[in-house]
Amino acid sequence: MSASTTTAPTGSARIRGPVLIIGTGLLGASIGLALRAQGVEVLLEDISPSAQAVASDIGAGRPVMHDDAPRLVVVASPPDVVAQIAEDALTRFPYAVVLDIASVKADIAAALRSSGADVSRYVGTHPMAGREKSGPVAARGALFTSMPWVVCPMPESSAEARQVARDLGVALGANVTEMEAAEHDRTVALISHLPQVMSSMIASRLQDSEPHELALAGNGLRDVTRIAASDPRLWVQILAANAGEVVPLLHGVREDLNRLIATLEDPEAPGSRLDIAQLIDEGNIGQARIPGKHGVPPQSFAWLSVLVDDSPGQLARLLADIGEAGINLEDLRMGHSAGAPVGIVEVSVMPAREKELAGALAERGWKVVQ
Amino acid sequence: MSASTTTAPTGSARIRGPVLIIGTGLLGASIGLALRAQGVEVLLEDISPSAQAVASDIGAGRPVMHDDAPRLVVVASPPDVVAQIAEDALTRFPYAVVLDIASVKADIAAALRSSGADVSRYVGTHPMAGREKSGPVAARGALFTSMPWVVCPMPESSAEARQVARDLGVALGANVTEMEAAEHDRTVALISHLPQVMSSMIASRLQDSEPHELALAGNGLRDVTRIAASDPRLWVQILAANAGEVVPLLHGVREDLNRLIATLEDPEAPGSRLDIAQLIDEGNIGQARIPGKHGVPPQSFAWLSVLVDDSPGQLARLLADIGEAGINLEDLRMGHSAGAPVGIVEVSVMPAREKELAGALAERGWKVVQ
Repeated sequence: MSASTTTAPTGSARIRGPVLIIGTGLLGASIGLALRAQGVEVLLEDISPSAQAVASDIGAGRPVMHDDAPRLVVVASPPDVVAQIAEDALTRFPYAVVLDIASVKADIAAALRSSGADVSRYVGTHPMAGREKSGPVAARGALFTSMPWVVCPMPESSAEARQVARDLGVALGANVTEMEAAEHDRTVALISHLPQVMSSMIASRLQDSEPHELALAGNGLRDVTRIAASDPRLWVQILAANAGEVVPLLHGVREDLNRLIATLEDPEAPGSRLDIAQLIDEGNIGQARIPGKHGVPPQSFAWLSVLVDDSPGQLARLLADIGEAGINLEDLRMGHSAGAPVGIVEVSVMPAREKELAGALAERGWKVVQ
Repeated sequence: MSASTTTAPTGSARIRGPVLIIGTGLLGASIGLALRAQGVEVLLEDISPSAQAVASDIGAGRPVMHDDAPRLVVVASPPDVVAQIAEDALTRFPYAVVLDIASVKADIAAALRSSGADVSRYVGTHPMAGREKSGPVAARGALFTSMPWVVCPMPESSAEARQVARDLGVALGANVTEMEAAEHDRTVALISHLPQVMSSMIASRLQDSEPHELALAGNGLRDVTRIAASDPRLWVQILAANAGEVVPLLHGVREDLNRLIATLEDPEAPGSRLDIAQLIDEGNIGQARIPGKHGVPPQSFAWLSVLVDDSPGQLARLLADIGEAGINLEDLRMGHSAGAPVGIVEVSVMPAREKELAGALAERGWKVVQ
């Protein structure tokens, strides 16, 4: 099992093994799979023997042994215990670079600094990837492909440790960005933790609904509540760790909510309509700031709707026709309506191609409207 | 222009014209287009001459004349003025059935009842369809295909008026459901109005964000904020009209929010982790109640992730391969990551077909993981 430490040219980065992965859940095992595919020697350690055995069985690496000397340690444990495990790793392997991949960074850096560990060999990272499923069985080497990989060095981190942190992201096919830990935590509070708790609060209201009420649910409700299916065990740790950044955002939401409730409690009062319009308008402004697939605003895509029978091969035929027309899809959404025999597929393209695509599809017999 | 009033067999319902549509925006003009395609005579009226002219030009009907005698009047005006216009129509056309298509129903019924108009000829309806775009230029006859069409008769509504309201939905290809106005309004508050204001409040927090922060945004944020792009003018009227049903839901959200803020202000206090877990868990429970495409819970689909190059025809080739395997897609989502050359496409199928599909795709050279 002791493979050589040559690296394959998937990214432009070479990771020199052995790499020890502590915590062989979804993310740890996925990193192992990706590195093994590049010929890197990967060692696995998990407090759960069965998780470690599964990760090993799927080819994510081999169980670590007492005389192994990893060059790189990746701490992929649950967020709660990452700081402690990273501190231990810095002591156990005095020549190794130690990274972690937890989704909140400042508290881990602070804990390591106050522990007195040699943090020059430590860098925090946050691969922004995940799946609905968890555990090593769900792992896949391509999990990080094209996803953001945020590197948060401490001021004390050595140049070598920083380089390894970046190299790992590149080797896994991710898009590497560097950021200070505090800025990272503020950012993920805004773009990830706030949406999560809001989605959970919306979905929570559905608990006592009747099935015939939810039968009327459209894409709007589905979109808004999709992430409400997330794992409570993981989110307890994330939210507790980043509470300091999440709370100010929630205060802002509470102000808006109080204003909205006061307005809707007396909707005929002077100024109340303007107040509601302002709330929706502020949402328009914020939403428009989110970049689309190629970093351009989503509004700049043109959307076309096409009727598609709900039968095998229909969607494929549609996309084949789009491909034949030589037009690249920017996005695609399938409409949902319980029990419907016909569906609506919305496709988006660069505006310059909209007319061309509409024409090409109409020619091929599709019902389409811009 | 005076077409005969024969009807085409799109649905199983026959709509007898002439049908007068008052308000030729997106929805009114779309109804006109659909009915015209079935050979029904459609008359158009709009307070805006240009909106009326555009609707007429695109083939949604012809301008109404002073001696026209519609059998059916569909009030498709902005929600604020629907009650007044429906009352006028009941008086102007003493033999016509009058429907409206506003998205809040109880206040209109109450206004009509207190007006003394002949409400036996009135039925409220709510076609749950729409687009990001508005105005008659965006109209399309297929807008209502497979979408819910809620019929809310008043106790006073005649059997004939009820039948016409149902028939119109069927003729437009929609899924017709009957409900009392109060129940309808409670339902849309939960599945549509609450998600809208929450999405707006999340997106509103993004107003002052930096571009490099939003560059890290994933599908979660995009999903949760998609409907925050909605039209403030329309939503002012909807929220004001349904304030009585929306406010109690917002009180529930405020309770959850206050609890969450208190918990996160002291995340190390005893019981705080349990509290956070409960919030996320309640969201899990609520989200799981939303039916999927065929009325079955979304969890019952199996998801596979496939790597796809961002070039024309790649997605089509993938779907062609799925079609060739004879497997019907339940859903499809494109992954987004700013500036990435490779994308991840998630496809869902019935669980019984998962292994078969994974095998078929791997055989054809796709990188796929269940």
